[in-house]
Amino acid sequence: MSELRGACIIGQSGGPTAVINASALGVIRTALDTECVTRVLGAANGIKGVLEDRLYDMGQEDAAELDLLKYTPSSALGSCRYKLADPDKDDTDYKRILEIFQKYDVRYFFYNGGNDSMDTCNKISKYMQKVGYECRIMGVPKTIDNDLNGTDHCPGFASAAKYIATSCAEVWQDAHVYDTGMVTVIEIMGRHAGWLAGSAALASLTGCGPDLVYLPEVDFDMDQFVADVTAIYNKTGKCMVAVSEGIHYADGRFVSEAETSATDGFGHAQLGGLAVKLADIIKNKTGAKVRGIELSLLQRCGSHVGSDTDIQEAFAAGKAAVEAAVAGTTDKMVAFQCTREGGYKCETVLQPLDIVANFEKKVPREWINEAGNGIEQPFIDYVLPLIQGEPNRALENSLPRFARLKKVLTTEM
Amino acid sequence: MSELRGACIIGQSGGPTAVINASALGVIRTALDTECVTRVLGAANGIKGVLEDRLYDMGQEDAAELDLLKYTPSSALGSCRYKLADPDKDDTDYKRILEIFQKYDVRYFFYNGGNDSMDTCNKISKYMQKVGYECRIMGVPKTIDNDLNGTDHCPGFASAAKYIATSCAEVWQDAHVYDTGMVTVIEIMGRHAGWLAGSAALASLTGCGPDLVYLPEVDFDMDQFVADVTAIYNKTGKCMVAVSEGIHYADGRFVSEAETSATDGFGHAQLGGLAVKLADIIKNKTGAKVRGIELSLLQRCGSHVGSDTDIQEAFAAGKAAVEAAVAGTTDKMVAFQCTREGGYKCETVLQPLDIVANFEKKVPREWINEAGNGIEQPFIDYVLPLIQGEPNRALENSLPRFARLKKVLTTEM
Repeated sequence: MSELRGACIIGQSGGPTAVINASALGVIRTALDTECVTRVLGAANGIKGVLEDRLYDMGQEDAAELDLLKYTPSSALGSCRYKLADPDKDDTDYKRILEIFQKYDVRYFFYNGGNDSMDTCNKISKYMQKVGYECRIMGVPKTIDNDLNGTDHCPGFASAAKYIATSCAEVWQDAHVYDTGMVTVIEIMGRHAGWLAGSAALASLTGCGPDLVYLPEVDFDMDQFVADVTAIYNKTGKCMVAVSEGIHYADGRFVSEAETSATDGFGHAQLGGLAVKLADIIKNKTGAKVRGIELSLLQRCGSHVGSDTDIQEAFAAGKAAVEAAVAGTTDKMVAFQCTREGGYKCETVLQPLDIVANFEKKVPREWINEAGNGIEQPFIDYVLPLIQGEPNRALENSLPRFARLKKVLTTEM
Repeated sequence: MSELRGACIIGQSGGPTAVINASALGVIRTALDTECVTRVLGAANGIKGVLEDRLYDMGQEDAAELDLLKYTPSSALGSCRYKLADPDKDDTDYKRILEIFQKYDVRYFFYNGGNDSMDTCNKISKYMQKVGYECRIMGVPKTIDNDLNGTDHCPGFASAAKYIATSCAEVWQDAHVYDTGMVTVIEIMGRHAGWLAGSAALASLTGCGPDLVYLPEVDFDMDQFVADVTAIYNKTGKCMVAVSEGIHYADGRFVSEAETSATDGFGHAQLGGLAVKLADIIKNKTGAKVRGIELSLLQRCGSHVGSDTDIQEAFAAGKAAVEAAVAGTTDKMVAFQCTREGGYKCETVLQPLDIVANFEKKVPREWINEAGNGIEQPFIDYVLPLIQGEPNRALENSLPRFARLKKVLTTEM
């Protein structure tokens, strides 16, 4: 494969995670150290930054400050939820992307995101091939939801899972101090896949886990839910429940939908307020004292209790993307292939973008108990190795010392 | 002072904190190692455990397991919110407490709690003196609210403050990723005192703090709030607000109770706390995308990001209580006297119970800015030393390893 010289662009897209910046650092650091990559540009707010010619010159950043990205949550370059049109119907955006690629001689494009982002990569790649512009395009996975196809797991998931498990164990302690009754409902992210809600069950390893766990993989039945909670509450005086925001009735309606108004840029219903709603239903039915807790944004930015395994893997994914692209690969997403027997091992592999894009990987039904209100051991065996290791984060005054980037916009060609 | 031989009881009361068990450990460990303390009994659910003769024999606990209490959040012995009657009107409970004290030859009583608990201590102490039963009674302070009189600060406050500051810094990162507008409202505990909500401002030291902070020490004005938020939102496209759950109008009505928020399609009042209501009001007034986040129980049990200074001081308070009681002191609460100039120093002192009980210490008005929507430097200088140091907590599978006590109930005299 002949060497391809030129600039690279790295962009971040979709909802942020605790480790998406570790992946960005993996790309940026490796690209800066690669001779044939002439320049490293960071797209402000993902593909929008490309369309709007808002590109940061990453070579102007201080190296030590860049390194802090490894432990800085959220998307340091900015993110977007911008969906490219079908190029056969409207190729305006694609022409503009080509124009920017040509302007800066961009030959490498790395996009760090979830399903929608892999779709974006795929479309750009196909367009560039069609018009004959040589450019290597690689996806770097990211999503707390862990719903990407073709990879053992996704960077970002494990840190959120660890935050959730740790928080559930702590809340369990708090919810068990009085000898009066108490039902606690904890609402966890995950629209269509229950990986995160299921991770609440890891707290049980500490002796302080939820009594019931409801995932979107199983149709939700309100009467059964009330019966499940009441049975445990009547027996022990307490009940702690973890629910995915995405639980839905058999007809597909989200349980939270009565409170839903807005939709995001992709037409996904915005969810929230479910914990309080379910707690209220339990209160009305049982008279129990209740508490609804929504982990909200906290669970996806809680880098202070992140998984070091996740952080190192996220970095490795970014690094692998650059190395593969420089070696001649294009149209691929970096994925993880893992073994767990005889000790956890994880290696990066490459997957075609089109088997990744627009497909949501769910929790296997057999990893959920028959009653649909708990988790089976294979789920625990799957997640537990991923959350290992404490982040070696930088502190200042015992508070997080996040990366402070200069973000120098470039206009030079 | 003559040596007083006998058993001791340690009880925990009121809302739990991340470090109340460190104080309990300070009492238990010191008492177990003190020759004249013949037995160490833990009251199940505070004073209720005394009234109901539910006492754990702490001498039967494994020493290593007990030591884990230092990093185990919430009240390991169980808590209560039981208020003793005025003994001049109804002395039933006091007679019962005397009976239990006599049954187990209890000569030392340590109560670990907030304002109400110091009131409980004070009442029991006066009753025991009246009936001529020799018993030394000491209060060990605890409250995340930091509103106890007579002490520089309270164990439990700093860990909650650190959790809040860290979480606000992380949420700030998350709330700034898109180039679209966003208003985030974070609701923080503290019904009458704004120490915790004010601590959100510590996040500003990381460069990622709230734009506006509202404490209950200043009357809340909804029009002014909307104007404050709108001004910042219009200028920057973002606004992050920290509010105390206890903010109230000039007439004393809590905003959380007075504001009947928007109703859903069925005419039901929308569920959710203050953060969601305020966010909803901002959305209606400005059209901004909003997010209301309630830190809920998470902020008082988040021991994984606790302050080691707080943990060590909490332990020292428990230890000092036992040492003082054994030396002959009674009717006192352990308090902290601190200096900050020339480096932070903290020492334990003893305060009369009656200057502590039933008084709430507020944030000085001059530590809040004139507009009543932000914090001044003296507040930061006061809090910052308290949150220093990372907890050396035990982990198992990278998850918290909390103390697992046997809790052997005793009936033996």
